[in-house]
Amino acid sequence: MHNNLQIKPVGYIKRISPNEDDKDRSLVTKIIVNEELKKALDGIENFSHIYIIFWMHQIKDTNYLHHPSKKHETEAIGVFATRAPIHPNPIGLTLVELIKREGNILFVKGLDAFDDTPVLDIKPYPDWEHGNCIIVDEYRIPKWLKKK
Amino acid sequence: MHNNLQIKPVGYIKRISPNEDDKDRSLVTKIIVNEELKKALDGIENFSHIYIIFWMHQIKDTNYLHHPSKKHETEAIGVFATRAPIHPNPIGLTLVELIKREGNILFVKGLDAFDDTPVLDIKPYPDWEHGNCIIVDEYRIPKWLKKK
Repeated sequence: MHNNLQIKPVGYIKRISPNEDDKDRSLVTKIIVNEELKKALDGIENFSHIYIIFWMHQIKDTNYLHHPSKKHETEAIGVFATRAPIHPNPIGLTLVELIKREGNILFVKGLDAFDDTPVLDIKPYPDWEHGNCIIVDEYRIPKWLKKK
Repeated sequence: MHNNLQIKPVGYIKRISPNEDDKDRSLVTKIIVNEELKKALDGIENFSHIYIIFWMHQIKDTNYLHHPSKKHETEAIGVFATRAPIHPNPIGLTLVELIKREGNILFVKGLDAFDDTPVLDIKPYPDWEHGNCIIVDEYRIPKWLKKK
């Protein structure tokens, strides 16, 4: 009944330098929010971290049922259990540090996305319930990952 | 250039009881993943927490430029700085506890979404870089929120 949903980008990602490594999380990247949505950013400066939900428009591969083993893995795993960009929908989700806002432009640190990537949504971190923040600091992960 | 993106749900949310409070984060909810994507879940059982990205299909309001004040807020704020469901794109993002997996069905705790909500993507928590988990436990929030 919800076979194909229409989604319209709210902005796009602009990397500062065209040749930089988009996987380097120490770099600062710009998010250009559509001008008419500028006021929807009001108050975001009060959060140090935000989630960016984006559309990995350069991902074409559809071999998403199994992800090949990586050096840390002992067996193949499904894409829903990885951060691999090959997904049924090429949706990216990254938690970044908000450095500053200038009108409709956000400067964020740690966004591992290509230049010109469409942005679908922006949400504050962390989530909350009845005004109380929800932080998950007790969690279980596979053996091929290391805890912080 | 990316004016309208097509997105196809990977499954949907099935609440256990039709009359339960969908805002009650102590409840367990089912996620029915499309049968053909079942193997994409392999290995997800090794994570205790996962992100659910969903489409809030019942949200019709488009007054998203400013969000009215709530009891904890002192001024109106933009929707990108809130968790309000009224967004340019009605995308929901919730971090939930994965209780168990049965084939193509995930049982999760803490999913604040309506029955039959389309699911767009599933991602493991937390994110990582070079195999090392990234947990953000130092953060700044507005005065109307309380830290954990």
